[in-house]
Amino acid sequence: MIIIGELINGTREPVQKAILAKDEDFIRELAVRQAEAGADFIDCNVGMVGASEAEQMEWLVSVVADAVDVPPCVDTASPDAMRAGLEAWAGDERPICNSVTLERERIDSFLPIVSGRDVQIVALVMTDEGVPKTVQGRVDAAQRLFEALTASGSAPEDIFIDPVVTPLSVEPEGARIACDAIREIREALPDCHTVCGLSNVSYGLPRRTLLNRVFLSQAVLAGLDSAILDPLDQGIMSSLYAAEALAGRDEWCANYLGAYRRGVL
Amino acid sequence: MIIIGELINGTREPVQKAILAKDEDFIRELAVRQAEAGADFIDCNVGMVGASEAEQMEWLVSVVADAVDVPPCVDTASPDAMRAGLEAWAGDERPICNSVTLERERIDSFLPIVSGRDVQIVALVMTDEGVPKTVQGRVDAAQRLFEALTASGSAPEDIFIDPVVTPLSVEPEGARIACDAIREIREALPDCHTVCGLSNVSYGLPRRTLLNRVFLSQAVLAGLDSAILDPLDQGIMSSLYAAEALAGRDEWCANYLGAYRRGVL
Repeated sequence: MIIIGELINGTREPVQKAILAKDEDFIRELAVRQAEAGADFIDCNVGMVGASEAEQMEWLVSVVADAVDVPPCVDTASPDAMRAGLEAWAGDERPICNSVTLERERIDSFLPIVSGRDVQIVALVMTDEGVPKTVQGRVDAAQRLFEALTASGSAPEDIFIDPVVTPLSVEPEGARIACDAIREIREALPDCHTVCGLSNVSYGLPRRTLLNRVFLSQAVLAGLDSAILDPLDQGIMSSLYAAEALAGRDEWCANYLGAYRRGVL
Repeated sequence: MIIIGELINGTREPVQKAILAKDEDFIRELAVRQAEAGADFIDCNVGMVGASEAEQMEWLVSVVADAVDVPPCVDTASPDAMRAGLEAWAGDERPICNSVTLERERIDSFLPIVSGRDVQIVALVMTDEGVPKTVQGRVDAAQRLFEALTASGSAPEDIFIDPVVTPLSVEPEGARIACDAIREIREALPDCHTVCGLSNVSYGLPRRTLLNRVFLSQAVLAGLDSAILDPLDQGIMSSLYAAEALAGRDEWCANYLGAYRRGVL
């Protein structure tokens, strides 16, 4: 499982304060703790839009790059902030561009940024009409994203398709549709990764971490091989190890037993 | 979800002691607590084989019948004990016969017991050659059980197919194969229930309840609509409520929110 640590996100109030105050220590610590807990990428989202977003993203990625060897997952809808974030990283490992969609304006502005750059890409199944309601609609959107990205030079294995999970409180079938879409996208595009932000699913409901970890367990069974999550949440991480072992993706439970011995379970 | 409470099982040492000592209070309390926690059936397994099994089963079911209105799930491989257990129940709700298999001796001795009796039946996909290794082998066995049981008079909706989950420590693909089998059996035999004993999956591994609840979450996504589990285990029950909501089987999260308000999550 490829883990993208979600904690450096300016929609979280303490992170927003740290960004506005240019509090390097706060950001560094969040990056280090997530990397130590097993994050393969550190999501960087300044959480504010506007003229200063690119400048803030450049600062945020620079601080993360200085703190850890783990590459950033530059998380923005702004082409300027994306370019600034990717350019602020000079490490060996390739960063992630998070995210491209099928929305006309977004794809037209983002394809030139990722084309020719050595980056990986999160691609959301979202169009100008919104997120397709059906499983088939999401698989079709995944195919179109795949075609656009490979045509502009991306390798299939550098594409992370996000089937987009809607909050259960808004769409009772949303989580099941996302899992079914993961299963079918894996079949249709076997060389691509699938990725999902977990916490959206539980928005507006009590005991959110319970819903998040049960959804992760189900999505792993469906074939999810990457997730944007809180690696410091022991409930999430223990569910992840158990889910991978149960899904037949951890031979002889080696990772599960290792996590148990490290006290993570 | 149809819940079969698993705690009255003579392979558990305190229960075995209670059965040998004919300790009615101990058994009554276990039955009442499981029924209060939401069990739809109370599994009754004396955990010992031999000449006295039928007599012990008769006593056990009588005590449970006297304690709760919830019907028993008579759990034995002995035809005599099965007959004794079913006859000891005189309540309104129909009991479960647990279990029939495709083993020649078992099916020949059990079909006459269930035929013409108003009972529901757990049917395990097990043959004289053991449990089929593949998903397709388990679906084929389910079909053969379905044909034998309906031919002898059972209604499809009274049959609970158990795809048999093997311990992860013995068969790394066992849990995934069980989930895939659940999915395909639901498609092939849409009027039957599927059922699974949870705790077998984690045998021999640390943090068994973690594995049990993640497996339950995955099996619910696959379509499991009944389980043999410990209804007093809050981790299991909260995962169950979350899993059903996420699988789109709890409209507007009504059961999930009700469980939250009752303090079960």
